[in-house]
Amino acid sequence: MIETKGYATHDDKAKFVPFDFSRRDLGPHDILMDIQYCGICHSDIHQAKNEWQNSMYPMVPGHEIVGRVTQIGDAVTKFKVDDTAGIGCFVDSCRECEYCKAGTEQFCVKQAAWTYNCTEMDRVTPTFGGYAKHYVVDEAYALKIKADKDLSGVAPLLCAGITTYSPLRRFKVGEGSKVGVVGLGGLGHMAVKLAASMGAEVTVFSTSPSKEQDARKLGAHNFVVTRDPENLAPLTGTYDFILDTVSANHDVNQYLDLLKVNGAMVVVGVPTEPLQVVSFKLIMGNRILAGSGIGGIRETQEMLDYCAEHNITSDVEVIPITNIEEAYDRTIKSDVRYRFVIDMESLQA
Amino acid sequence: MIETKGYATHDDKAKFVPFDFSRRDLGPHDILMDIQYCGICHSDIHQAKNEWQNSMYPMVPGHEIVGRVTQIGDAVTKFKVDDTAGIGCFVDSCRECEYCKAGTEQFCVKQAAWTYNCTEMDRVTPTFGGYAKHYVVDEAYALKIKADKDLSGVAPLLCAGITTYSPLRRFKVGEGSKVGVVGLGGLGHMAVKLAASMGAEVTVFSTSPSKEQDARKLGAHNFVVTRDPENLAPLTGTYDFILDTVSANHDVNQYLDLLKVNGAMVVVGVPTEPLQVVSFKLIMGNRILAGSGIGGIRETQEMLDYCAEHNITSDVEVIPITNIEEAYDRTIKSDVRYRFVIDMESLQA
Repeated sequence: MIETKGYATHDDKAKFVPFDFSRRDLGPHDILMDIQYCGICHSDIHQAKNEWQNSMYPMVPGHEIVGRVTQIGDAVTKFKVDDTAGIGCFVDSCRECEYCKAGTEQFCVKQAAWTYNCTEMDRVTPTFGGYAKHYVVDEAYALKIKADKDLSGVAPLLCAGITTYSPLRRFKVGEGSKVGVVGLGGLGHMAVKLAASMGAEVTVFSTSPSKEQDARKLGAHNFVVTRDPENLAPLTGTYDFILDTVSANHDVNQYLDLLKVNGAMVVVGVPTEPLQVVSFKLIMGNRILAGSGIGGIRETQEMLDYCAEHNITSDVEVIPITNIEEAYDRTIKSDVRYRFVIDMESLQA
Repeated sequence: MIETKGYATHDDKAKFVPFDFSRRDLGPHDILMDIQYCGICHSDIHQAKNEWQNSMYPMVPGHEIVGRVTQIGDAVTKFKVDDTAGIGCFVDSCRECEYCKAGTEQFCVKQAAWTYNCTEMDRVTPTFGGYAKHYVVDEAYALKIKADKDLSGVAPLLCAGITTYSPLRRFKVGEGSKVGVVGLGGLGHMAVKLAASMGAEVTVFSTSPSKEQDARKLGAHNFVVTRDPENLAPLTGTYDFILDTVSANHDVNQYLDLLKVNGAMVVVGVPTEPLQVVSFKLIMGNRILAGSGIGGIRETQEMLDYCAEHNITSDVEVIPITNIEEAYDRTIKSDVRYRFVIDMESLQA
């Protein structure tokens, strides 16, 4: 076993503390990564606090991981030592079901091995995430990353990036598309950058007037404050696609109204209450409300390559690992522009 | 003006009574139809009783109309006298907007002229529906019908038929598709016939065990009684497409669970309460919830031709117009297999 260390929480009320644990010895297809950066995703917080009622402790969260390859198994072909690699939300899957074969491993019928708060496919060995020094992962579930960018801004692409890229591609956003992005947080700010880079005319819908300047800097062409319904009325029936990134409970019907005929709105946030959907708003205009869950390995690699080519990274605040608690508190208050990323150099041996 | 007669209701509580009114004189593009049959759609009842709060009285409902062409305007090319014609949910639209040009006149940005309880495009002249002896309609908004079938069973195709045909086509239901139909009423029974004719494996989801025999006769391969959630659990993740035809309030999440990855559920009913949609059920599996609103003239004609070719009509109970009230009462109680159709011969001169 490979001894490593990270930061873990030991129950739903506990603070993070240093945690020594081990990674498996490298199999022929495994790579060992020295983690350089790990993003803080809001779902880390949900799980650390057991808000989804499925938490396994001790928990080392983190699934926006980039690092340096320091060792490779005998059969590894995709990476060599000193390459930069990434890990996203899952580290294995059955590889045999129709969804794995289709490159959508996140929907594996046997359930993927999530990067943390899960078990490996043996369904016994717990998985620990990226708030740590090292990760051992099968090369098939690691992503190739060009190391010519500031890697702190690349880390959040592994979740926030793919979560927003995948639905934009699926619904064929491109030159001339009119796109709305609801909420300007970790996901929303990526959606704005990506949609704008694809040639869309992007509108940010936000409750915070103070975010307008940022929105425009990120690439948005329009900014609408949603607290006043009068701001939305003139936009009825004018959007091809809306990406709703909001995790708080909110009214989706006001956005459904904004879609053109055959327009689609995709939700990627998970509010605690069910969405209240007026069916007439779907029927009039053959409108679509859909969900989107991260992306498979193939599409995640495509997204990383796309972002490298288009010079897209996440806007981040880099913190030492000792500041996790403060970062969690600020993330909950949406007081981050736009992603906290842990610099793993700060995790002392 | 052309004098005619029908049955109208004069306010939201009133019973239907004979009603004399007039149709416009034929313009160059108009046809005059002697109505032979008119179906009773549940939306007739909603509007007669002002349940959608937009009723205009006196109201002559009816938008599932078939009849004989008895007179044609000078410029008419699509019909000749003695042809059989049909009228569906709308009788005109702006003809200029992107949706009209795309053949989806039902979503006309200036609002289509609905067949009744609306105005013509002058926004002054009220429209009266098909519970009547005659209709005058622009040939561009009339459908061609082959008269070699029992026309009583063709009338409901003009609404129930197109409402179910359009989403089946849009979501590419075909050979080998696994399709669920929720609710076996006027819409549901058409959905079963159509989906089965397209080669799908069809499952009916119903609260009424007594409908199993009918469902199988209509072409369903499977029948699931939904009152017991245990019947649904084994079906998780196995359907490509589900058409939800239920207008009563009901839980859509249990059906979302049944969809495969990228599967779609389309609602065509309008419950009074918003649908409660658990967003996680959309996200896990990139699932789609969509609406579908009737269909344009081009697709309605395609549907009629398809039904003629595949020998598909609606299962109907033909009634004299004097029985409207009883038919409404029984429709509300879902006590009809599966559509009431008025024989207009019963409307005495």
